[in-house]
Amino acid sequence: MSRERRVRVPVSDLAEGERPLGPRVAKYLAVVHRLRPGDRFAAFDPGRGLEADGEVVLVTASDLVARMGPVRAASLVARRDVTWIQAIPKGEKMDGIVRDATELGVTRIVPTTTSFTVVRLEGPKREARRQRWERIAREAARQCGRSDAPEVLPVAVWAEALAQGMTPGASGFCLFERADAPLALPLLDALSREAPLAFAAGPEGGLSAAEVAEARAIGMEVVSLGPFVLRAETVAGATLGALRTLDGLFS
Amino acid sequence: MSRERRVRVPVSDLAEGERPLGPRVAKYLAVVHRLRPGDRFAAFDPGRGLEADGEVVLVTASDLVARMGPVRAASLVARRDVTWIQAIPKGEKMDGIVRDATELGVTRIVPTTTSFTVVRLEGPKREARRQRWERIAREAARQCGRSDAPEVLPVAVWAEALAQGMTPGASGFCLFERADAPLALPLLDALSREAPLAFAAGPEGGLSAAEVAEARAIGMEVVSLGPFVLRAETVAGATLGALRTLDGLFS
Repeated sequence: MSRERRVRVPVSDLAEGERPLGPRVAKYLAVVHRLRPGDRFAAFDPGRGLEADGEVVLVTASDLVARMGPVRAASLVARRDVTWIQAIPKGEKMDGIVRDATELGVTRIVPTTTSFTVVRLEGPKREARRQRWERIAREAARQCGRSDAPEVLPVAVWAEALAQGMTPGASGFCLFERADAPLALPLLDALSREAPLAFAAGPEGGLSAAEVAEARAIGMEVVSLGPFVLRAETVAGATLGALRTLDGLFS
Repeated sequence: MSRERRVRVPVSDLAEGERPLGPRVAKYLAVVHRLRPGDRFAAFDPGRGLEADGEVVLVTASDLVARMGPVRAASLVARRDVTWIQAIPKGEKMDGIVRDATELGVTRIVPTTTSFTVVRLEGPKREARRQRWERIAREAARQCGRSDAPEVLPVAVWAEALAQGMTPGASGFCLFERADAPLALPLLDALSREAPLAFAAGPEGGLSAAEVAEARAIGMEVVSLGPFVLRAETVAGATLGALRTLDGLFS
């Protein structure tokens, strides 16, 4: 049994009318999914949480012209304001964290560097990497049926990143393996107040005592998911799975 | 700041006294960690949840003799009886699920095949793969500080796998993207009753209607983590992160 699903594609600056969608979207629709003139698809604007139906008008070698219907508010978008602050781990682990965080409903991702961060992104590499994570988030949004995608902020140092998440009224949680306090009660409290949420997690080497103190000073609860030490790449999925589940108590 | 941590190694049939630990343990202690005679380490028996302190007596080209102290019950083991039933996804995704499930406190993993499972393990490959997952679970236990490791059962068909998890008194949850019921309330109820828990999750292609019906018939709740469709490899971490967090309400 294969379920029929309409092809979904992220389109920036979505608007009603006929227009070329650019080579990236063209390739996805015409090459990957073999759509032809007359075929219909769904488009969403991940930056604005909008969607529209589209119909292929013309396929050229490098582009695709579509007729887009009326633009409407997307039906399936993240309902909560959730910032995930992540000290960049080694290799491609950040890619997986961006995917997990997107599927699990985060609205903002702040990559950060800490004293135990091994990855050092200098100069143009910083922005290139940010754009890569943004593309991954949009693709993950498409796959999971979400019509918005988390914003990926520029790489910031720890103190700046914490401040990005701790907007006025926000409740924040710093995940720290040696914390005693469990996440459940303060998270339930924050959910019941409909507060914006911020979570911060360290790299493979963990957080320094000074970094944990900074999180506490800015008003975050320092919490742990239990006695076993999670790998850096497990923390986001586990914490945000908990958020999604506890959120189910309020819906 | 690097924290001093004693080297931990899994040793089967842990017993007090002097003995060779075999080439695999020898390589880990003498080559990876460069332990020499007189150096101390910690050993745990992942099948029995026991631990003991050890001291290196002799290092040879292919083995290592250690003097093991008194064997005691391990201090850090999974406290709940949790079975994770997983339809095998493609590629190496099952390896990651086994790691996540181990870090997040599962005590039994049941690999299963369903109608949309692409991977077909025939003959000796089935047992070879099971042994590989068992090694991955032991290694993940070592890394996360757990002194037991989940048992990895032989690959079973869906109905058999469900039965393995639904032991008398167990509460079971089948994760299904199109379910309406959220996980939180029935899971809280099961945790408050100290029931053994079983979770079942499908492969990339999802579960068939018949498979969901089988789960319901054996007494499982059919639940979802929310409106976005999670990848097969995200479900275990997210669900078990929720379990760990809700468990924090009872500790």
